[in-house]
Formats: sequence, C-alpha cells, structure tokens
Amino acid sequence: MKNAFIKKETVRFQHVDYAGIVFYPRFLEMLNNLVEDFYAEALNLPFKNLHETGGIPTVDLKAQFKKAARLGDELTKYLWIKNLGGASMHCGFKFEHEDGSVCLEGDVTLVRVDFSDDRKSIKASAFPDDMRAKLEKYLL
Amino acid sequence: MKNAFIKKETVRFQHVDYAGIVFYPRFLEMLNNLVEDFYAEALNLPFKNLHETGGIPTVDLKAQFKKAARLGDELTKYLWIKNLGGASMHCGFKFEHEDGSVCLEGDVTLVRVDFSDDRKSIKASAFPDDMRAKLEKYLL
Amino acid sequence: MKNAFIKKETVRFQHVDYAGIVFYPRFLEMLNNLVEDFYAEALNLPFKNLHETGGIPTVDLKAQFKKAARLGDELTKYLWIKNLGGASMHCGFKFEHEDGSVCLEGDVTLVRVDFSDDRKSIKASAFPDDMRAKLEKYLL
Amino acid sequence: MKNAFIKKETVRFQHVDYAGIVFYPRFLEMLNNLVEDFYAEALNLPFKNLHETGGIPTVDLKAQFKKAARLGDELTKYLWIKNLGGASMHCGFKFEHEDGSVCLEGDVTLVRVDFSDDRKSIKASAFPDDMRAKLEKYLL
Repeated sequence: MKNAFIKKETVRFQHVDYAGIVFYPRFLEMLNNLVEDFYAEALNLPFKNLHETGGIPTVDLKAQFKKAARLGDELTKYLWIKNLGGASMHCGFKFEHEDGSVCLEGDVTLVRVDFSDDRKSIKASAFPDDMRAKLEKYLL
Repeated sequence: MKNAFIKKETVRFQHVDYAGIVFYPRFLEMLNNLVEDFYAEALNLPFKNLHETGGIPTVDLKAQFKKAARLGDELTKYLWIKNLGGASMHCGFKFEHEDGSVCLEGDVTLVRVDFSDDRKSIKASAFPDDMRAKLEKYLL
Repeated sequence: MKNAFIKKETVRFQHVDYAGIVFYPRFLEMLNNLVEDFYAEALNLPFKNLHETGGIPTVDLKAQFKKAARLGDELTKYLWIKNLGGASMHCGFKFEHEDGSVCLEGDVTLVRVDFSDDRKSIKASAFPDDMRAKLEKYLL
Repeated sequence: MKNAFIKKETVRFQHVDYAGIVFYPRFLEMLNNLVEDFYAEALNLPFKNLHETGGIPTVDLKAQFKKAARLGDELTKYLWIKNLGGASMHCGFKFEHEDGSVCLEGDVTLVRVDFSDDRKSIKASAFPDDMRAKLEKYLL
C-alpha cells in the first residue's frame, strides 16, 4: 500500500450494535476521521481551519463490508488518491484487521468547496497549486 | 416509484454538521431506519424480533450525494428491491427533497444471517418462502 | 403531568448497545429532539430559524436512568419548565415506558444565546416578551 | 487531581454541531470512552471481556457544561472515584481545555451488573476483591 495515508482506530463500545459488531454508519464516521486526519497531517490543513471558509463534502461513496469488526478490534485504515480532478479527488480506502484481512474497502469522492459569505451556499473550488502538490504524493 | 416502500424523515439538529448540512454518516443512519421500518411494516418482522436470532447486515453500499439537506428539511425515502437472491437482497434507495429533487440515491445489499447459539458467529440463511413472497412485492 | 410538552419516540436499532439497551448518550439525543420539537411546536420557532442567529445550549444536566429501554420500546417524553429566568430556563423531563414506569427523569437547564456576527462567540440574551408568554404555559 | 485516571481526546468534526461547538450528547460519548479506557487500563478489564457476561450501566449523571469546546480543541479528561459501594461506584469527572479552564464537570454513578444466561435481564453484582483493590487507588 505504497503512498497510502495510514491511521489506526480501535472499535469502541459506541461503535457496536446489538449483535456486537460495528454498526455500518459508524464505519463511515471512522472514514470521515481518516479524511480529517489526512487533511491535518498530510495537507497541514486542520478541519478547524478548512471549515472557516469551506469544506470537502462527500459526493460519492462505494463500500464493501467484507468482515465484521468487533469491540476492541484495532483497525488499520488506508486512504489514497486514485484520480485527482480540478476540485475533486477520487480516493480509495481500506480498513484492515490485525491479521491483515480486509474489514471493508471502497471508493469515496470528495469535492473541495468554498462557502458563500453567509455560509448558506457552496461552490466547487479548484485545489490551489501547493495543495495539489501535497495531494499528488498520495496518488496510487 | 411504483412498488417502493416509502417513509419520511425530517432533518434534525443531531444530523447536521458545522456547515449546517447533513453529515453523511447520518444519512446512512436514516437509511438503516428505512430498512428497519421496511422490516417492521412490510415484512411484519420488527428488528426486536429479528435480532433475537439473527440480523440483516449490510455487505455492499453505493451512494451518490446529489444535493445537500439542511436542518428542518423533510426528506422522502424510497426503498425497493432490484434483485432477490437466496439469502440476500440488492436494493435501490433514493431520498428526495420536498420539491422532488434527489438528495441522495444508491444501492445497498443486505444479507440475511442467523446467529450461532452464543451470538458470536453468523452464517447466511435463505429467506423462508413466506418472507420471500412479501419481499417480491417490492421488486422493481 | 399537566402543562408538560409531550412527544413519543421509539427505540431504534441505532440507539441500542451491545447489551440490547439504549446507550445513554442516545437518550440525550432523544432529549435534544424533545427540546427541538418544543421549540418548533410550542414556541413556533423551528431550530432552522433559531440557529440563524443564536442557539439554546445546555448548561446543566441531571439524569437518573431508572429502567433500561430496549429495541422497539415506545417511550413517552415529557418536558416542562420548573423555573424561568431572564435568559435561561430550568426544565424537568421524564421518559416513560408504555406501562407508565419511569425510564429516565431529570433536569436540564438551557440558556438562550445570540451569536456574534461571525458566529464565533455567543452571549446570553433575554427571552423576548412574546416568547416568555409562550414559555409560561409550560411552567409547573 | 491526584489519583485521577486521565486521558486526552480531541474534538472531531463528528462531535460538533451547526454552531461549531460540541453537541452535548457527544460529550457523554467521550465520557463513556473515558470509562471504557479506565476499565481497560486501570482495571485490566477491556469492555470486550466485560460485556461477555455483564456490563456497567450508568444510573445517575450530573454534568455542568462550563465552556464550549470547538473543532480541534484537545480536551483532558479526568475520572476519579468519590464513593465505592458494594456494586456501584460514584465517580467525579472533569474535562479541561488546554489552558486549564473547565470545559465540563460532573458526577456519574455506575453499577456493576451480570447478565442472565439469555442476556435479557441484568442484576447488580458486587465488585470482587481484586477489582475493588484496583478501584480504591482512584478514590479521592
């Protein structure tokens, strides 16, 4: 998984359902955490700064849930860029179990947007050159 | 949208993010609510009964987020079956805004499973005939 | 429970934990829903309007969790005002099971605030007279 | 804060509301995380083991929300024991901002329970001696 951005997250009590496995919307919270960490650490743009003037909404998501995760499991999360558009990035992601088996994997497309001054409308906004240079390091 | 199972859900404070729009994992909670209502109302199998002995985990999800939803928006949620397998169903779903525009749409594949006696493992389990008959009414 | 504002909410799959009972932070989401409905229906001030210029943050919470709630339980939620200050209201709340037994009960204090123009700071703001008149109907 | 169990948690996008501050039920998720870490690290009893046969439900909660927390804030969470009963512990907790100011503080009472064999009912169960010895180190 050369070039991928990698973080770990442990399955907590708040993530699991009645069956004792991760409730799948919680996996998407974990994916959002991964993008949040990618912005802070790889792009040096923490969400607290990003969200002053814009955002990075998810416009397309594909996920295959391969193997259930249980309370206490430590997952390794991978994020990489498959295609970098003007204002959007099409990313691949994968969550692995400790034995290397795939927990879930998929694709997510994010679009860079700017807010209008009253924060009520948004429009797509191209990645500036310095951000594009940082993003290209994660192209796979 | 003939044959679809239809429910409404209003965007609440707990669903929206810093930008004032629905945080996308909350849309998946709304989708899970839709499946939960489908089981209770269309199949006469409330989740409290279903989860005594098994479940219906999501194994595949595709979603396109078309138009942001904001606090107070009333969404109409549609669920229908595209393909009915032995123990799985491939469903289509769509959430519409009040003006009929699409908020999000996609596909979700659910698998019927039984728990082992200690609830620690699961195996796929074919839909019984009476349930299959009810599911077929939602085939599109 | 004369004078109380009353709403029902059913325990859903997303609310319950590994033990099959409501995870207590989800009860607080249900309490927030109750306040949200109170604002929309009793004060004619939906949160989408309220949050244009201010909010009603919770500053103090006391809750006794008396009897677990399980998947599918229909809870009846009560909210009333114990003391109405200049910019704050001290409310009582109670969630009941269908047999009338108490699920949880407690007190919550909410403060009316206005945002600064850049939405980055807040200050307490007295209830206007027309809102105060509506609130007084729920004094107990 | 001698004797307290201490962990840090950073405010993430999923925690904040439309006003950009932590939605208070998310603070209770953070408190639950703190108890979960306390069990794993101080008592050497990870929740995945605890929840095989029992749990530690919250029966009483008091919280004062003193100062809003915003996206990216790093909070330091403290938990200590004020009174240790036979099967219950009355704990104090405090979340601090980086400048040492109090974000929230309060009290939470937890009860040790065992599940019945079918996991459908619970009964209070006294702390065994070895667990009690570990808990007493956090008495304040």
